[in-house]
Amino acid sequence: MGQGFDRAEHAARWERAQAAMQARGLDALLLTTEPEFRYFAGFHTRFWESPTRPWYLILPAEGAPVAVIPEIGAPLMARGPVADIRTWPAPDYEDDGLALLAETLRERVPRGGRIAVPDGRETHVRMPFSTLTDLRRRLGARRIVGDGGLVAGLRAIKSAGEIEKIRAACAVAARAFDRLPEAVRIGDPLATIFRRFQALCLEEGADFVPYLAGAAGPGGYADVISPATEAPLAPGDVLMLDTGCLRDGYFCDFDRNFSAGPASAALAAAHARLLDATEAGFAAMRPGARACDVWQAMARVLDAPRTGRLGHGLGLQLTEGLSLHADDRTRLKPGMVLTLEPVLATGAGRILVHEEVVALGAAGPEFLTPFRRAPLPVIG
Amino acid sequence: MGQGFDRAEHAARWERAQAAMQARGLDALLLTTEPEFRYFAGFHTRFWESPTRPWYLILPAEGAPVAVIPEIGAPLMARGPVADIRTWPAPDYEDDGLALLAETLRERVPRGGRIAVPDGRETHVRMPFSTLTDLRRRLGARRIVGDGGLVAGLRAIKSAGEIEKIRAACAVAARAFDRLPEAVRIGDPLATIFRRFQALCLEEGADFVPYLAGAAGPGGYADVISPATEAPLAPGDVLMLDTGCLRDGYFCDFDRNFSAGPASAALAAAHARLLDATEAGFAAMRPGARACDVWQAMARVLDAPRTGRLGHGLGLQLTEGLSLHADDRTRLKPGMVLTLEPVLATGAGRILVHEEVVALGAAGPEFLTPFRRAPLPVIG
Repeated sequence: MGQGFDRAEHAARWERAQAAMQARGLDALLLTTEPEFRYFAGFHTRFWESPTRPWYLILPAEGAPVAVIPEIGAPLMARGPVADIRTWPAPDYEDDGLALLAETLRERVPRGGRIAVPDGRETHVRMPFSTLTDLRRRLGARRIVGDGGLVAGLRAIKSAGEIEKIRAACAVAARAFDRLPEAVRIGDPLATIFRRFQALCLEEGADFVPYLAGAAGPGGYADVISPATEAPLAPGDVLMLDTGCLRDGYFCDFDRNFSAGPASAALAAAHARLLDATEAGFAAMRPGARACDVWQAMARVLDAPRTGRLGHGLGLQLTEGLSLHADDRTRLKPGMVLTLEPVLATGAGRILVHEEVVALGAAGPEFLTPFRRAPLPVIG
Repeated sequence: MGQGFDRAEHAARWERAQAAMQARGLDALLLTTEPEFRYFAGFHTRFWESPTRPWYLILPAEGAPVAVIPEIGAPLMARGPVADIRTWPAPDYEDDGLALLAETLRERVPRGGRIAVPDGRETHVRMPFSTLTDLRRRLGARRIVGDGGLVAGLRAIKSAGEIEKIRAACAVAARAFDRLPEAVRIGDPLATIFRRFQALCLEEGADFVPYLAGAAGPGGYADVISPATEAPLAPGDVLMLDTGCLRDGYFCDFDRNFSAGPASAALAAAHARLLDATEAGFAAMRPGARACDVWQAMARVLDAPRTGRLGHGLGLQLTEGLSLHADDRTRLKPGMVLTLEPVLATGAGRILVHEEVVALGAAGPEFLTPFRRAPLPVIG
């Protein structure tokens, strides 16, 4: 499952977060979700699939972070950069860690202090509704507030090491896409094609394949989020697979379209236009440009409606951070990793979607996926 | 990806929920998370890996449910049992669906009414911290309250159709476990073994393999939640793989231990004791028994500490519902599906864990996994 990151990378994250907390007058971050644990504690497990146990990580504005976690997680947490690990034997039917959490917060946050939870788009607090109320009662003269997007802002700028991990995840899926035409054929049920593709991703080095969506239809498909059906791939269909492979804790997110049999002229033209839009978006990506500028460059090629998005950030999650959207005015900065995801309407209720992953450096953008101006690969 | 459920199964779920709401004086349920959408709307997609868009489902105490969801989800939602689908083009930077949600709640819930969100162990509200505050302000004279475990209580009792789907998921992983000794060998890195096992699960019919944990060591391992390392499987190790495969929306959750080379007498004895504990737990499972009674029956065989759990419910999630724990007094009912998960300490910081899945019927328990009193399978 790869090596994660060393203590220096995590210490740098803590320092950036602490500088931002001090600038905003926040006394601690209270973190509760899987990507937050991976980002700040290098705590990497699929055990989050189990909702049973609460997990808490406190990063004070000064000093070392404290993990307040179930006993079952202590051996794994101890292998990472967090040294102060406080545990309880969860599940505890009297008190499932809340007293220990409140005590730790009272110890690390002064009276009158503000404890921030990640807030804004894409966040939630992983605590039951009434537990959060209960926690507030136990904090003495300390308040829970939103972080105003502080954590999201930090995560949006990837380190060189993070970019290499995203590149590695993209390379895994790219090799699997290259092998797909040899592994499936016309007539195979979509569900079978989905399973074979996932197996190819694993063979090529994916640790997990948490995300795969796709569809097939003549000239296009209805949406890009549906699971596979048992319908067979039909001659003349265009098949799209959109995958998020995990490699060493980081996601790729891109798709490929395949033609079942020779592509029609209309399909080939639509695909070429998606590649045109991708290149236009790529050319618009530079430090200081706004997300909406990149959207505009792509939308111009596509006659896209103002309401959709044509790409997004990614990293610890399949999608995270800004959207390439008409109304997203976020300024691009070096270290951002984005997908370019042009969409074209190809008929009544039918779309065609292409997607690539791009990292932005100080000198300009770089594809992390092997972008090629090439005809649609054919499945026979 | 299988067929999901027909409208009748969903209508029965709505009716049970509505009867419980009326008994508790609740006017609607507000649902926001993936398992809740699958349970009440048959909405099945891996797109929840993307945290970007909010999703809302309202089940009023009387009448039909309403989905308030991003446009991108409308085609998939329309294939399910929910007819009233209201959409907005998310992401919307002015208002990401909150006005539409508030308007719908004001329409379906009378003034003075109580809108319940799932609450208690294992729940969270999938909304940003400040969005929930914002929603409260927009509800007029209506309150958001916790559901007091209403949804968890419904989900704990599986229908015959749900039990068949869990059985099918268990069968997939069982076939993959049977094939593992042919697919790996001593000296293979654990990470490679993990990938091969996932590929076997896919070949055997898993839709996805969201969960796999495991470890290897002489006579036992440190924990059961860690991801794989690149360490090679060594002669004399016991290898444990614990998987949650998804098949048609339902999880299995069980493990198998393998001996790398012939098992030592101590390992064989420890493994036999885990099987003894499994049988003791199975025998204690009957309608009306308490979760702690089943725990007690297993703990007696294992000399287990009072603080751990030795099994749990499962279904739409890898773990859900009661715990087989000394302090869990939940009464077992027909329709519950539980894992029996005995743990034995086998040395300093080392444990051995076995796990099976059992459904409780009116007449008694039934293994959904192929439980066998057999020696440890050997990897050569």
